[in-house]
Amino acid sequence: MPVGTTIAVTQEELDKVRYDDHGLAAAIVQEHGTGDVLMLGYVNADTLRQTLETGRMTFWSRSRQEVWVKGETSGDRMYLREVHIDCDGDALLFKVEQEGRGACHTGDHSCFHTPFGAPSES
Amino acid sequence: MPVGTTIAVTQEELDKVRYDDHGLAAAIVQEHGTGDVLMLGYVNADTLRQTLETGRMTFWSRSRQEVWVKGETSGDRMYLREVHIDCDGDALLFKVEQEGRGACHTGDHSCFHTPFGAPSES
Repeated sequence: MPVGTTIAVTQEELDKVRYDDHGLAAAIVQEHGTGDVLMLGYVNADTLRQTLETGRMTFWSRSRQEVWVKGETSGDRMYLREVHIDCDGDALLFKVEQEGRGACHTGDHSCFHTPFGAPSES
Repeated sequence: MPVGTTIAVTQEELDKVRYDDHGLAAAIVQEHGTGDVLMLGYVNADTLRQTLETGRMTFWSRSRQEVWVKGETSGDRMYLREVHIDCDGDALLFKVEQEGRGACHTGDHSCFHTPFGAPSES
């Protein structure tokens, strides 16, 4: 079973996060090791703190308007490994170890499992 | 010099994209080959179509409120390789070949070059 990694942050680092009008920042989740992009979610200040303190990805669900501890019902948890912030502070990149079947509610490894269009050399 | 890959999409695929109140969908850009996440931007229906037709990443700049052909001034262009859509249609994953110095206006390879906090095994 994966072990959670907690992340110690300074107030200065927390102050770098720029939340939108809804108090949210974008949270890209990437699988540690494979580099697969698993999903895009959103965090508010509280769920970001909870994620860092517990080592478990915890989002703010925009559709349900509630705290969403990823995998709490499905068992497909995401264990934090490291975090990066982007140059303008409105997006965070979380590298995680994915437990169980995968990130997607469909059972797929990544929420981005559907190809969009067909590439053709121009 | 990289060659652009155009992406042929059906109307059915285009209809899967769910835009927010501002008419935008999230656009994660990942480097083809390395798997590095380079940046998070946003596309509207027009810049998505332009991206697919030209094979060059083209965003809607939220800060400048204008079409943003990535690398048009810096020369650090992003050439499209493939696209995926996520399970609820509000985010797209673009795999690209990055030209020049990198994705970030700072000259860094990725906009996510700044570590956020310090991991510690719990």
